[in-house]
Amino acid sequence: MKNFDFCTDIPTLGEAKIISPLKKHTKPGEPEKRFISDDARVIVDVQINRLQSDLKKNSSFDQAGPREKIYFDPSKLKCAIVTCGGLCPGLNDIIRSIVLELYHIYNVKTIYGIKHGLQGFIPDFQHDVMNLNPDSVSGIQNTGGSILGSSRGTQDIGMIVDCLERMTIGILFMVGGDGTLMASKRIVEEIEKRNLKISVIGIPKTIDNDIYLVSRSFGFDTAVDVATLAIKGAHNEAIAYPNGIGLVKLMGRHSGFLAATAALAQQDANFVLIPEVDISLDGKNGFLQALENRILHRKHAVVIVAEGAGQKLFDKQQKKFDPSGNIVLQDIGLFLKEKISQWFKAKNIPISLKYIDPSYIIRSLPANANDSVFCGFLGRDAVHAGMAGKTKLLISFWNNHYVHVPMDAASGKRKNLDPQGKLWQSILEATGQDTFFTD
Amino acid sequence: MKNFDFCTDIPTLGEAKIISPLKKHTKPGEPEKRFISDDARVIVDVQINRLQSDLKKNSSFDQAGPREKIYFDPSKLKCAIVTCGGLCPGLNDIIRSIVLELYHIYNVKTIYGIKHGLQGFIPDFQHDVMNLNPDSVSGIQNTGGSILGSSRGTQDIGMIVDCLERMTIGILFMVGGDGTLMASKRIVEEIEKRNLKISVIGIPKTIDNDIYLVSRSFGFDTAVDVATLAIKGAHNEAIAYPNGIGLVKLMGRHSGFLAATAALAQQDANFVLIPEVDISLDGKNGFLQALENRILHRKHAVVIVAEGAGQKLFDKQQKKFDPSGNIVLQDIGLFLKEKISQWFKAKNIPISLKYIDPSYIIRSLPANANDSVFCGFLGRDAVHAGMAGKTKLLISFWNNHYVHVPMDAASGKRKNLDPQGKLWQSILEATGQDTFFTD
Amino acid sequence: MKNFDFCTDIPTLGEAKIISPLKKHTKPGEPEKRFISDDARVIVDVQINRLQSDLKKNSSFDQAGPREKIYFDPSKLKCAIVTCGGLCPGLNDIIRSIVLELYHIYNVKTIYGIKHGLQGFIPDFQHDVMNLNPDSVSGIQNTGGSILGSSRGTQDIGMIVDCLERMTIGILFMVGGDGTLMASKRIVEEIEKRNLKISVIGIPKTIDNDIYLVSRSFGFDTAVDVATLAIKGAHNEAIAYPNGIGLVKLMGRHSGFLAATAALAQQDANFVLIPEVDISLDGKNGFLQALENRILHRKHAVVIVAEGAGQKLFDKQQKKFDPSGNIVLQDIGLFLKEKISQWFKAKNIPISLKYIDPSYIIRSLPANANDSVFCGFLGRDAVHAGMAGKTKLLISFWNNHYVHVPMDAASGKRKNLDPQGKLWQSILEATGQDTFFTD
Amino acid sequence: MKNFDFCTDIPTLGEAKIISPLKKHTKPGEPEKRFISDDARVIVDVQINRLQSDLKKNSSFDQAGPREKIYFDPSKLKCAIVTCGGLCPGLNDIIRSIVLELYHIYNVKTIYGIKHGLQGFIPDFQHDVMNLNPDSVSGIQNTGGSILGSSRGTQDIGMIVDCLERMTIGILFMVGGDGTLMASKRIVEEIEKRNLKISVIGIPKTIDNDIYLVSRSFGFDTAVDVATLAIKGAHNEAIAYPNGIGLVKLMGRHSGFLAATAALAQQDANFVLIPEVDISLDGKNGFLQALENRILHRKHAVVIVAEGAGQKLFDKQQKKFDPSGNIVLQDIGLFLKEKISQWFKAKNIPISLKYIDPSYIIRSLPANANDSVFCGFLGRDAVHAGMAGKTKLLISFWNNHYVHVPMDAASGKRKNLDPQGKLWQSILEATGQDTFFTD
Repeated sequence: MKNFDFCTDIPTLGEAKIISPLKKHTKPGEPEKRFISDDARVIVDVQINRLQSDLKKNSSFDQAGPREKIYFDPSKLKCAIVTCGGLCPGLNDIIRSIVLELYHIYNVKTIYGIKHGLQGFIPDFQHDVMNLNPDSVSGIQNTGGSILGSSRGTQDIGMIVDCLERMTIGILFMVGGDGTLMASKRIVEEIEKRNLKISVIGIPKTIDNDIYLVSRSFGFDTAVDVATLAIKGAHNEAIAYPNGIGLVKLMGRHSGFLAATAALAQQDANFVLIPEVDISLDGKNGFLQALENRILHRKHAVVIVAEGAGQKLFDKQQKKFDPSGNIVLQDIGLFLKEKISQWFKAKNIPISLKYIDPSYIIRSLPANANDSVFCGFLGRDAVHAGMAGKTKLLISFWNNHYVHVPMDAASGKRKNLDPQGKLWQSILEATGQDTFFTD
Repeated sequence: MKNFDFCTDIPTLGEAKIISPLKKHTKPGEPEKRFISDDARVIVDVQINRLQSDLKKNSSFDQAGPREKIYFDPSKLKCAIVTCGGLCPGLNDIIRSIVLELYHIYNVKTIYGIKHGLQGFIPDFQHDVMNLNPDSVSGIQNTGGSILGSSRGTQDIGMIVDCLERMTIGILFMVGGDGTLMASKRIVEEIEKRNLKISVIGIPKTIDNDIYLVSRSFGFDTAVDVATLAIKGAHNEAIAYPNGIGLVKLMGRHSGFLAATAALAQQDANFVLIPEVDISLDGKNGFLQALENRILHRKHAVVIVAEGAGQKLFDKQQKKFDPSGNIVLQDIGLFLKEKISQWFKAKNIPISLKYIDPSYIIRSLPANANDSVFCGFLGRDAVHAGMAGKTKLLISFWNNHYVHVPMDAASGKRKNLDPQGKLWQSILEATGQDTFFTD
Repeated sequence: MKNFDFCTDIPTLGEAKIISPLKKHTKPGEPEKRFISDDARVIVDVQINRLQSDLKKNSSFDQAGPREKIYFDPSKLKCAIVTCGGLCPGLNDIIRSIVLELYHIYNVKTIYGIKHGLQGFIPDFQHDVMNLNPDSVSGIQNTGGSILGSSRGTQDIGMIVDCLERMTIGILFMVGGDGTLMASKRIVEEIEKRNLKISVIGIPKTIDNDIYLVSRSFGFDTAVDVATLAIKGAHNEAIAYPNGIGLVKLMGRHSGFLAATAALAQQDANFVLIPEVDISLDGKNGFLQALENRILHRKHAVVIVAEGAGQKLFDKQQKKFDPSGNIVLQDIGLFLKEKISQWFKAKNIPISLKYIDPSYIIRSLPANANDSVFCGFLGRDAVHAGMAGKTKLLISFWNNHYVHVPMDAASGKRKNLDPQGKLWQSILEATGQDTFFTD
Repeated sequence: MKNFDFCTDIPTLGEAKIISPLKKHTKPGEPEKRFISDDARVIVDVQINRLQSDLKKNSSFDQAGPREKIYFDPSKLKCAIVTCGGLCPGLNDIIRSIVLELYHIYNVKTIYGIKHGLQGFIPDFQHDVMNLNPDSVSGIQNTGGSILGSSRGTQDIGMIVDCLERMTIGILFMVGGDGTLMASKRIVEEIEKRNLKISVIGIPKTIDNDIYLVSRSFGFDTAVDVATLAIKGAHNEAIAYPNGIGLVKLMGRHSGFLAATAALAQQDANFVLIPEVDISLDGKNGFLQALENRILHRKHAVVIVAEGAGQKLFDKQQKKFDPSGNIVLQDIGLFLKEKISQWFKAKNIPISLKYIDPSYIIRSLPANANDSVFCGFLGRDAVHAGMAGKTKLLISFWNNHYVHVPMDAASGKRKNLDPQGKLWQSILEATGQDTFFTD
């Protein structure tokens, strides 16, 4: 990861002049809350060379955390939360954390939940707004999904900002992926154009863990946990039957992080296919021949395929887009299932092929303990950032610290699994698979 | 369940004259092992009417358990175990329990594991035989699947018995479903024809829990446990999106026990479709209209469908059979997914439909604690029955006791979910669904 | 289990004349709900001898389930639910099931939750009454404990009935153990004395699974599930250290069902100590010598002790009683820990002893899927019994059927683990332990 | 964390001249393995100030990972692994990862497992040595504990090095905590004195997560996962009974990381007591008065106490040391239980106090998916470091990278929870507790 260039400051709505209520909480004799200075930064790239003499000072992020002075007056502030896109473990933890922090710590009592993603801003859909408070978020972290619901696809940016104006929202918390962050940026731009004092804080959500400048995204750890169940199942089915093949499709539209990490967590896979590494199916160096070799020698095989792997295998003409503007991927899982069956049928080798697609079971789980703690910090830091009047930023975890990432820096790019890196090299060692499959 | 008529005794290979080693274990002063008399029976039908004066004495089963005298000489006995058909939680528990009981308690030291189901008997397949002993079964209960592997389909009965003769097997333990039990019966008949002294003990396996005269089959409880995850997932997806529909396919080729029990364990389903209750899709009283009504009024719905439900909806000509002779069911899950999409598309109602098929994740799990204990008893009682020289029987659990069920009584029939009974009526109450859907 | 003698009918409050609302639910063309006739009975003792000619017709229970005619007018009925004694997985499932059945199926809209057990009836404690309805029980089954709370100890019976009168309760559902069922009986007697029309339905609760005439009690299966974690832990600690000993205390005040069943579910124990089998600690045939022999030969040992085991080892003078009138047991776990340490210290054998007491972790869990389904049936059948005007009964599961057990038949007795029976004999085989330990 | 000063290089046994077998694995056309240069470093302190102009170049660690050239000749190398101190989830993952990497990737075929910690080096204990290979480590990651066993306490350093010499060990992998790392350092010093070519690689193990310069220790995440069960249990018991108090003791001899993180993962605690924050029990600002206030106002309370909290409350004279030289802590859990009981008894307030100590259940668990992946990387990087001839280092995770930490830098210090930091401030917000309790 080279040439970071985030010298742009995080924009603010204005000077933060109000003493933070966190300050007032402190009793005499108690240690003071440690506020984070606006000058506190976290270095972006920690890898240096011994011979290197200096570091560019610009390559750093704002540290997230409570500020001693805040911009909004809590007693008059209204906030809104919206969750967008596919489900992901931890959404309810984030909602709860934002609400509790606003309500109990900053004394903000008016918090709206926008229902069903961006649709909730648009009058035509007629989705009610939820009032959020400690009661309405009690226990929600034990349930998967999102109490606010979600939807895919973007909506008219102007109408969204109209809605924010009508509702006199001061801070909007947007939890979502790629598409949502793109929309967030455009919402901020529209807000700026109208000269409104609305802060927009993004909390990046992706079960694929591939958002740029975000080292870890919430829900990923839970997803890995449960993906191992599917891999175990595939393994048990594969070894039970003569020439047994277990084929598991895991999430990962553009990146193989989930497929690779789950394959390390439950080391039963013989082949892992990911978007970052092209594969060839046919030919003597192709995947199908390699699979056949494995079956002939070992009588069973487990294959993990990320949903975005092998997209070059499909006909280019067929590209479609979903309501969020994401490319509708061809289903590599069912495609591979078909291709494997055909291959072995043609060779007259009987196989027992089992296909497992745990997608929605994983997406709709509650967060595990680790993700739950993580979501708590993300939510609280989102609140601190918003209260301080900052805007157009994402709450990110980077080099073991919570930081503010400018929306401009993160959007439109993507984090990819490096085929030369530690994770993929470990997969190559664990599976023994070739690197990879050319005709 | 009426008109039981099992007056036929369980066949035996000959008089049991040898004092059981369990007897010798008893030290002076210790309580004696309680042996089960061959006259001990368990009543089949416990439901009586207050006005009824008597019970037919024939309607009873042999009690399972250790006999004071056994038929086989442990020091010379060879046993074999085979697991057949689809995977099911608990197979390894059963194998382990049989091996430990034979080895430690009866001092039988030669125990073979036949690999990959009935294929393992047939020379052409060249599957090795495993030697089973306490070391080779240590810890296997913590893993799903079967260490012996499995296969589907039957094999030549004569060649199977040839193999038993060549290996001089005394007791064959067969763990399998419908088809396997049918094969077991034919194996016993061939053994009788050849006048061999080989006991065949069946342990009924079905994740569908639908074997006749078997009130509970191992692995079912584990299956229900994990099926609830899929239902929760479907529910969370359904409520998150406008007009969300979660569709879960569960096992159950001919019976709705798993679908119904899981629906009671995790009460999120609005519709449960099972083989025992015909459904009509179209028309104003059909399922699709009912689903539409639900969506219009409540905006979300969860549907659970057993894999064997709605088979009448398919074209009759297309009937196929798998290697085990089971009818290849049309895939009602994908069929329903398609039909639901078409229905709402035609009505121009946007929906968000998520399809979950947890089948292989469930089948390949290790048994939970409850099933593990249950499998232990089944395995031990199978050993006791075989050592006593009994044959042509299944180990069953009935009215809270372990019993011997004659193979003739159980095979060729099936246990069905009674649409008038407690389980289905509870589903109707829990879902509020109609009973059911006529055109 | 001999000489059952339950010819006494279940008492009723009067003739059931009202057509059940379940009847009215039935639409034309639908199958009718299958109502249970008052003459339908379930045989108590299913074990017969082949030579036996007849069965005593009296040895049977009423079948539980909906009656075609009911006693109470739903539109005017008020019901109350109370949960008493120690926590047990499934309490919330039972509460939820009763409330949903009353509310949705019988249209009873007034349902009170009495807080903190019998204390809730007594004005001095000032516990509020909860209004129960589908909203207030939504999702509670996912949480352990009881939303009504509980308390130990009995209260003044007259004051309890005063409270029922003041609140004009028609049906009281009491969920509790031994002591609670005793109190229930006395409440019914006081109700009879006052000529009130109040039905009292008991739902037996015991994590020890030792209530007489109740083959399975809710929560037990969940308890076994989680107790295996503690046994695994004890095993891993024991084998890791030289002369490692893992000592696990499990629930079981008067019976060893949980200790024994968990020991079968997770077969790592070398010694299982239960109340039904006396133990001697010292002497050459005592437990401590046996443990020493094990340590010398195998270097590690796992011991499971039920909390009520070995009470004879304590000084008789020290007997104390808790508020519920139960004997306060001496803590055998800590006692054994001390005795084992002393024994090996005296012999100068270094050991590594780890003590695990998972009691409250287990008691406060939510029910697993199996218990959840079970609790649903218990709750619904409790409602059916109460609506029909029956009283002074327990809902029990017996020979695979749900039945009414007269309170008089069940109270004051206890189900014990039979040291000659299948469960304990399996433990002796699994552990190899002597049967047992005399001086 | 200030003033890092790790300019000392990691010592090496000699020049690494041998081409790594990883190099040879690479086929033409495949991407090359990305080797880590010895000049690649990771910055220690990523927190900078915007106004700061430069970074000290010395504050950095070696990056861990495979080197292009190695020191040892794999065909002649013998390695040994030892696990020391208390059990921790992930030990078997580490062992397995080291063995597979040595065996499959570096072709080192002689790998010894030293049994029962440092005892295994000392002849008097007569512990056998295990031969480790892919078969002997197959599946061990699914089991808690350590297949090598462990022991507490140090042993004679000279005798340990004697043993290494006799066995001609080239690389010793030591997995252990504080005391073990101290011993490692002394072993290296003895090795240097004798001029031996033995590399010693430490893998820091602490369920308390408090090793200096180690941002995350393996097993911690699993521990948090399961600690939440105990907290849920305490909460359910507390709210069920009038004046219910749930008291949970968690690990944490010198640091509150586990107590605090678990308290954030399951936000039911009202008080969290940790070693880093002194507490006063008595007096009007003491903990007991605060607990009483909570009970009077809210009727229930959950208290989490780290095992090392409140040590100042104990009498100084009583200090004892265990075989590892660690201070034997007074048991704060049982102490608090007693003090709480006395306080409320004196005030004549009846309470229901439940005490939960899940220690050994947690320590002996298998690693969860997240820890399992983490352990895999630690083990592989330990092998890479050793093969390159480096020594006297720990494998650590720091700022999201795997690094080499010099033993001299890490030993004798400890990571503490900062009462001014994000974690503890979040606890104060979540619990609302005072900061803290002075007389």
